[in-house]
Parts: sequence; C-alpha cells; structure tokens
Amino acid sequence: MSQQAQQLLDRHRETLDRAVEAISTRGVWSPYPESLKKYPEEAVKGAPQRFEALLKQPFALKVTEVAGQVGAEVSPYGFELGITYAQPEQGALIASMQAAMPAWRDVGAEARVGVCLEILARLNALSPDIAQAVTHTSGQAPMMAFQAGGPHAQDRGLEAVAYAWQAMSRVPATAKWVKPQGKHDPLVLDKRYHIVPRGISLVVACSTFPTWNTYPGLFASLATGNPVILKPHPAAILPVAMTARVAQEVLEEAGFDPCLVSLMPDTAEAPVTKELALDPAVKLIDFTGSNAFGEWLEQNATQAQVFTEKAGINSVIIDSVEQIKPVAQNLAFSLSLYSGQMCTTPQAIYVPREGIKTAEGQLSFDEVADTLAKAVEKFLSDNDRACAVLGAIQSPATEARIDKSRALGEILLDSEPRQHTQFPRARIHTPLLLKVDAGQRDAFSEERFGPISFVIATDSTAHSIQLAREVIGAKGAITLGAYTTDDAVAEQFEQLAMEVAAPLSLNLDGGVFVNQSAAFSDFHATGGNPAANASLCDQAYVARRFVVVQSRRHGQLN
Amino acid sequence: MSQQAQQLLDRHRETLDRAVEAISTRGVWSPYPESLKKYPEEAVKGAPQRFEALLKQPFALKVTEVAGQVGAEVSPYGFELGITYAQPEQGALIASMQAAMPAWRDVGAEARVGVCLEILARLNALSPDIAQAVTHTSGQAPMMAFQAGGPHAQDRGLEAVAYAWQAMSRVPATAKWVKPQGKHDPLVLDKRYHIVPRGISLVVACSTFPTWNTYPGLFASLATGNPVILKPHPAAILPVAMTARVAQEVLEEAGFDPCLVSLMPDTAEAPVTKELALDPAVKLIDFTGSNAFGEWLEQNATQAQVFTEKAGINSVIIDSVEQIKPVAQNLAFSLSLYSGQMCTTPQAIYVPREGIKTAEGQLSFDEVADTLAKAVEKFLSDNDRACAVLGAIQSPATEARIDKSRALGEILLDSEPRQHTQFPRARIHTPLLLKVDAGQRDAFSEERFGPISFVIATDSTAHSIQLAREVIGAKGAITLGAYTTDDAVAEQFEQLAMEVAAPLSLNLDGGVFVNQSAAFSDFHATGGNPAANASLCDQAYVARRFVVVQSRRHGQLN
Repeated sequence: MSQQAQQLLDRHRETLDRAVEAISTRGVWSPYPESLKKYPEEAVKGAPQRFEALLKQPFALKVTEVAGQVGAEVSPYGFELGITYAQPEQGALIASMQAAMPAWRDVGAEARVGVCLEILARLNALSPDIAQAVTHTSGQAPMMAFQAGGPHAQDRGLEAVAYAWQAMSRVPATAKWVKPQGKHDPLVLDKRYHIVPRGISLVVACSTFPTWNTYPGLFASLATGNPVILKPHPAAILPVAMTARVAQEVLEEAGFDPCLVSLMPDTAEAPVTKELALDPAVKLIDFTGSNAFGEWLEQNATQAQVFTEKAGINSVIIDSVEQIKPVAQNLAFSLSLYSGQMCTTPQAIYVPREGIKTAEGQLSFDEVADTLAKAVEKFLSDNDRACAVLGAIQSPATEARIDKSRALGEILLDSEPRQHTQFPRARIHTPLLLKVDAGQRDAFSEERFGPISFVIATDSTAHSIQLAREVIGAKGAITLGAYTTDDAVAEQFEQLAMEVAAPLSLNLDGGVFVNQSAAFSDFHATGGNPAANASLCDQAYVARRFVVVQSRRHGQLN
Repeated sequence: MSQQAQQLLDRHRETLDRAVEAISTRGVWSPYPESLKKYPEEAVKGAPQRFEALLKQPFALKVTEVAGQVGAEVSPYGFELGITYAQPEQGALIASMQAAMPAWRDVGAEARVGVCLEILARLNALSPDIAQAVTHTSGQAPMMAFQAGGPHAQDRGLEAVAYAWQAMSRVPATAKWVKPQGKHDPLVLDKRYHIVPRGISLVVACSTFPTWNTYPGLFASLATGNPVILKPHPAAILPVAMTARVAQEVLEEAGFDPCLVSLMPDTAEAPVTKELALDPAVKLIDFTGSNAFGEWLEQNATQAQVFTEKAGINSVIIDSVEQIKPVAQNLAFSLSLYSGQMCTTPQAIYVPREGIKTAEGQLSFDEVADTLAKAVEKFLSDNDRACAVLGAIQSPATEARIDKSRALGEILLDSEPRQHTQFPRARIHTPLLLKVDAGQRDAFSEERFGPISFVIATDSTAHSIQLAREVIGAKGAITLGAYTTDDAVAEQFEQLAMEVAAPLSLNLDGGVFVNQSAAFSDFHATGGNPAANASLCDQAYVARRFVVVQSRRHGQLN
C-alpha cells in the first residue's frame, strides 16, 4: 500500500481499535469532543468570519468535467448564501470514478481505512466551520449544528469505518488449503481473497442533517473501496461540499484520485437523483429523505443495494408514571429540539382517556395533556433559550404545514412565531400540540414533519399498544418512547418494540431524550420497519458494500 | 432458554467453535465425513430399501391446514416416484408461522443455533437416505448425490450457522452507558439489544441441487430467528421434504412449533412461488434457479431481502500451459461431472486461434481443442465409469437442448446417449463440445444449461480476456478458470477476476476442479456479477436476516 496511507493508519490506529471495541461493548465513547471548549479558541471564534468569506462566490472542488454551475441556498435564518458549485457532467464523472476504482480497491483495507480516519480527523478540526454551514442550511441552532453536524456526525462516520474494518478484517488475505489423500500426497491449494467494492456509491443527503445522515454511507462505502458521489439536498449543499473538499484533499495527498469523493449538486428545478440512481454503474445508494422517494428508490434502483432512512410515526405511550412533571419536562425538550425536525421527534403520544396512575394519584387525560403543554410553554418562555433550542424551520413547506395542521385536532398548545435577536428574518416557530381521539387516525397516523404533535386519547394502554403496533407496522417509526411503573406493562412495551422493530426508550425523565441517539451505543433506526430499511450502523450496513473474490492455484506444503 | 435447546448447544459446541474458526482461517475442515465408509454399514446398505419404502404413498409432515395433495416426481433414472405431499393452505401457513415466531425469537441465539446444529447432525446421519432421494430427483450419480447432497450440503448449512452465530454474537445482550456530567452525577442508561428476525423466510429450491443450494438459506434464516418455508422444485421435492421432517422433529423435541420449518410443495402446472414471494409477511427470499425468475424476484419482491443464485457463462481462458494433457484431463472431468448440470460447469473455453505455448512447444488451436475432446472421450470410454460420473440428465428440456445446440458450431465431440446397467431408461448423455469463432458470440454467450460447451477461437489472450470481461459483465459467471505459465498474464487473470467478481481457479491440473467449491474455504459465487446477487456464504448473507432492536432505561452505577 502507499506509504502515506500506511502512515495515516499508524497515526489513527488507536482510534480505530477503540472504535471497534466501542461498537462491541456499546458504552459511552467518542474521540471527537462535543464541547466547544476542547477546540482551539481561534477555530471557534473565527468560524463566523470564515463562513462569511465563503458567501457569494463559487466553492472550489475538484471536478473532472464541469457541466454547469448551480446553487441557490437560503439560510433559514433569512439570507441568501449566494454560493455556487460546479455540477459535474454525469457520464464523465462515472467514467472517471470507474477508472479510479481499481487503484483504490487494490491498495487494500488498511490504506483505505487510514485515509478515512484522516478525513474524519480533519473534519473534526473543521467542526466550528461545519457548524456554521449546518446552521445556515438546516436551520439548526448553533450549538446543535456544532454537535450534531460536527463531532456526532463524525462519530457516525467513524462507527461505519469501524464496522467496515471489522467486516473486512474477518476475510483472511490468504489461506493454504491442504486436503489429505490417504497414502497419496495431499492436495494443496494456495488461495487469495480480495475485498472487491460493488461499484459507484451514491449518497443522497437531506436538508436537515446534511452531515450526520451522510457520513455513515460515505465512510462505509469509501472504506470498502467504492467511489462516492455525494448528492446534497439543493437547500443544504455547503456542509456536504466542505466535507467533499476535505476528503479530496486527503485522498490527493495520499496519492489517490481526489474525485473518488465527488459532489454532484443539483437544483430543485432540475433534480438529477433519479437519473443517477438508475445508472447501471451505481451499485450502492444511501438515501435520507421522504418516504415517497425512498420507496421509489427501493422499488426501482434494483441494480443497487439501497439503504434508506425515511420517516415514520414516532410514538410515545404513557401508561403510568411516578411523577408527571419530570416526564413532561423531558418530552417538552424532545418536542422542542430543532422544532421537531428530527427524524426521531415524537409525533404520536398515546394516553388512556381515563387518565393514568401516578405516585401522587390518578391524573386525568386532560391533566396529562395540559401538563405537557405547559411544560413546553414554560421551557420556551425565555426567548433566547427558545431560539437556541428551536433553531429555525428549514423549509417554507414545513412552516406552511404548521398552519395547515391546526385544524387536525383541538389545540392544546398553539405554535407561535419567535423573533431571533441576531437574525430577525429567521423562520422560528414553537411546537403545535393537538389533542385528538384515537378514532381520528387520519390526523395522527400521517407523518406531519415539523413541530406538530398529537396527544391521543385511547381506551386503555392495551389500546395504545395496539394502535402503535398498527400505525408503526404500516408507517414505521424510528423511535418509540414509553412510560410505565408496572413491570408487566414494561415487558409488553419491550415486546411491542421487537414486533414493530423500533428502539424503545423507557421512562426517560432526566437528561436523556427519546430523540437522541448516541453513536457506538444506540442503533439509529433498525431497518426492520417502513421508516428505514437500514440501521445506522450495523453489520448489515457495511457487509453488503463489498464482495469477496478469491483465486486459487496449486501450492506447496510449507 | 429451553433446557433442551441448551443441551443441544452444549452437545455441538465444539463443532460450532471449530466452524467459526474454519470460516476465519479457510483451510480444509468438515465435521461431516465425505466417505461412505465412515457411516454405519446398515445405514448405507439399507438406504435403497428405505427409499423404495417411501414410494407410491403420501410423505408425512406436520401441516397446519392442508389445501391439497401434490407430487409428480419422476426419477431421471426412469421411473415415477409416486410420492405425494400435503400442500399447506398459504394463509393458514403464514399465520401459524407468525404466531410461532416470537417464541423462536425470544429463546435467543444460543438455543436456535443448538437446534440448527442438531438438525444438521441428524441430516448427516441420514446422508445415505438423502443420497437416494437426491439421485432420483436430480439425476446425480449415487456417489455425487451422497457427497454433494449429504455432507457437502450439510457443510454449507453449518457454514451459514457459523456466520449467523458470529454475527449475532457480535451484538452484546446488554450494555451500561455511563456519561460523565462534570460535577453532576453521570447519566446512566441500561441498554438491552435484541436480535429480531426479519419475518418469514422463503427458500426456493432447485431441481439439480435440492439440498446443497437450499441449506445455506434454510439455516441462515432459521438460526437468526426466521420461520422458513421450503418451496422445492416440483421435480425434486423428496430431499427437501426429508430435510423438513428432520427439522420439524428436532424443533418439536426442543419444545418449539415444528411448523417453523414447513414444506410448500407445488406443481409445474400450478406454481405458488410468485404469490408466496409477494406476500407482505415474506421478508427473506432465497432462490436458486433460472435467471428470468431470479431477476423477476429481485425486481418485484422488493418487500423482502432477496438472495439469488442464477446462472452465468462460466469461462475458462487458456493462454499457455506446461503440458496440455493434464490440463485436458482436468477439464474433461469438469465438463463430464453430472453432465455439465452444475452451476459451476464451464461453458466457454477461450483459446487463441494462433494456438498456445507449452513446455513441449507451440500447440495449434485445433490441437488444443482435439486434445480436450479426446480427453473427454477417453475419460468416458468405460461405460460404468461414465454413468457414475455423468449421472442422468435431470429434465427433458436439458436433453432437448443438447440436440438443438449441435448446430451452434462445429462439432468437436458429439454427445451420445449411454445405457445404465441398473436403470436402462435413465436419461444419460455425454458432453457436446463445439468449436466456434469469437465472432459467433450468440452461440457461446447465452447460457446453454447441460453438457454443452464451446471452445472459442480468439485473436489472442488479450482478446480472450476482453471477451470474458464483456460476457461475464453482461451475463455473470460463478466460476472462472484460467491457464498460463506467464506471471504477468496470471496477474491479468487476477485483475479480470476482480473486475467481473468471479472466483478464479488458476492452472488446475490435478485432483481439484474448477466446478468444485469447498465449504468453509471457497466462497461460492461472489454476489458481484449477474449470475448471483449473493455469495454462499459470507457475512452479507446472514447480516441482513435480522435487525437489532434495543431498549434503554435509566440505570444505576454498579
């Protein structure tokens, strides 16, 4: 392998070994600090200025053949970015990637993993800048944009590299096959096993988590030898472009074709994803986005291995609690964070219409619903804190959806616009909380992306479980929360989780939230229900990205 | 877990551990002897009689609800089996399997693997009987039916269990997640991780290798918690039914629903596979058979993970040899074994029209072709040996194809019928070897299933490589053989193998053959070209058969 690449692996070997350990033991671990204080002061303080310097001009990236220049990003905080990006000519891009693939394949797993780890390390150093880009494309508030867009996204990338390394390491490079033949000499074969990438990998990014949802596919594919086309959402190109630039720099320095990671930006008016997805050379597709498009990919891009994360009806079932207040506070945070624009935000909250048991006595349905509404209201009463939690609404469509959803139920807590001190034109809205009956299934069983949730009156906890089973069975879910003080009911929730293949968060009432997912410990989505056909990240997520090609020839006994 | 199942795992623990070791080191290993002498004499001698006793009557299996009785198998050796099998009512079968799944899931990996290993051990003891059933459905000659249908098939099943065990073991049952919070108490979460099966698994068997190609899917799915519907080819039900019976017995003894493994026989006139394959409850499909149906499954059964082994244009490229004779003898065996009805039999043999270099001087194209034809002729000159190698032609369609193929090229060696001493009505034919020019691509680049092969005159070895690249790229291949005395050319073959994702057998001239594939060492097919979208067996083959569902709740520091 290339000497540079070997040095990269040596430099990051401990990180790799610890990551492999972490995915096996699944405790708390990360090499990428989530506190800004751990980053150089200049890197943090200078980030806004460096972001400003990127605006209103072309963004430089390596491109084989330029077909045009695109880019029309608008910050949810209320200004145009004015950055343009070269769009590669598709045929030339595919051809150049296919030409670059054999060298990337033949250099071997160690070199590829070394390069991936160096890319991640440099992305980590760039986290404050990435945070700016994530903020002004996704609308995430700055702290979340930093954590989720920076170290937490890098964690997910590293996790994919660790799984890839583990899977590739399990295939020996060679074997000697010696078969006894009685009195005759044994049959001896020398065998070689090659890790062979499937082909070109297309990673289709989303507008809300342009790095967190992109890094697993990018790094899983790249580590296993596949060139990667990054196709950003037209509204969130910059964080993906910055990522591509870092990858290209590291690849080039290590002696590889930088176009092994290429950006393919497009516009809402002239999308390129369908054509790319059906290109016979594209053998892997990672997609985060709408159910409609994800299902289209699953059904049509049958030449490729397709990994989708779509959306579902994330659900919370409340059976009983010790104290309602900490539960309501916990849920209030989950409903508020990034204005419900996380793929993990609860939408359906099931509560028996007869109310629930608590250590302080029976609480009526309305008391539960009101306590939750008041907890959200109180949590967001300070405008600065509200803005720092809510972030901005990524798209005008989501903003419009809040308005349209008001009629779906009885308003427990109305959504209200907020004014950001620094960015007065920012699109900021508090959560809309509606009360509905279990019979109003059309209201709560369709995904309402954004800060829109339902408290649903059911006949009983058994009924809540049945509804969740049916709704998640049909529509999927990425998260399932549940509350009970009864061990037998807790076991029913555990069974429900397995049945609908949704991860269960039970009785969360402190500083851990149903919509948060920790790399190396939590499997994000399971791949077992309609919300996602893959998990970020498990063995199945990487094992399908390469094949093993062997050769054998007569050999000698040692 | 059930005590019986625990005992089963204890009993077979060493086998399991050694199997896991074997898939990692990939040397020679098997717990199932391939010599008949290692089996009890009575088991071997009594097999034909026990087979006779099965004929002309219903075959007993557990069935939830019987829809009808089917079965019209005809031995390729010339007689009707007259066995009928209960066909389950599809809806009732699916419902009963779904009801049985949670117990099978919840008992855990150890119990499931214990059950699988016991099934395999009993199948091994039954090998002489299975051999009878394989002989009189597939047409394989008795020794091959014993080895390939018995121990070698069991090896492939065990290999799948080993991969499944390894993949499941890598997910911890629990984890404690402890996140420091500065001066505050750490956040502590107790997490559980459940292996959750995808759903009902449909294994569609073929008529030529009813056990060898069926066991990997059966055991990979069953070990990971999925109930399995075995859908045999209508012409080869018995070996699959015998397998199902053993599985049902072991499951029932261990306290599980025997219908977790169920047979769904059908007829050529009223096939059920399409309807079953599109059932929303069917989440896994393993298929061995025609390209047309395999591709239909890949494109239409998008609700399921689909694993296909279809057909391709297995190829041999001859560049140069030390001595032509041992090469010709080696290839003669490969072309003759089971009358070319293996998915690994070479069809296209590329030779430069200028001839090849040997240690004994230049050989013309015609000399190479004639030496090969004569080697086949000589190898099959003894009729008893011929019958013991060729076996019988499984289907009349294959027999007819031999006749139709004569016009495709110049006949180097004509196919001739042979008479079996014990079964005079057996359908036995020697290989047809045709000479064609590289320009006659329509002749050799379509699969001609059966004993039909082409020696193709090319411009040069570079041209041979280019043709193989194009033909395998378009049609796939499960095997690639090559001969050269030049290291540089050997490296080109190695590169070709990686490009077209076909396993390479280089310079085989002794007792190892391009169409043989050893469990635990050889990856059978790669999954990377059109001949198969999966390999038997690798990590990707099992990792997609389950998902991980976790739960988390607040915990205490230990």
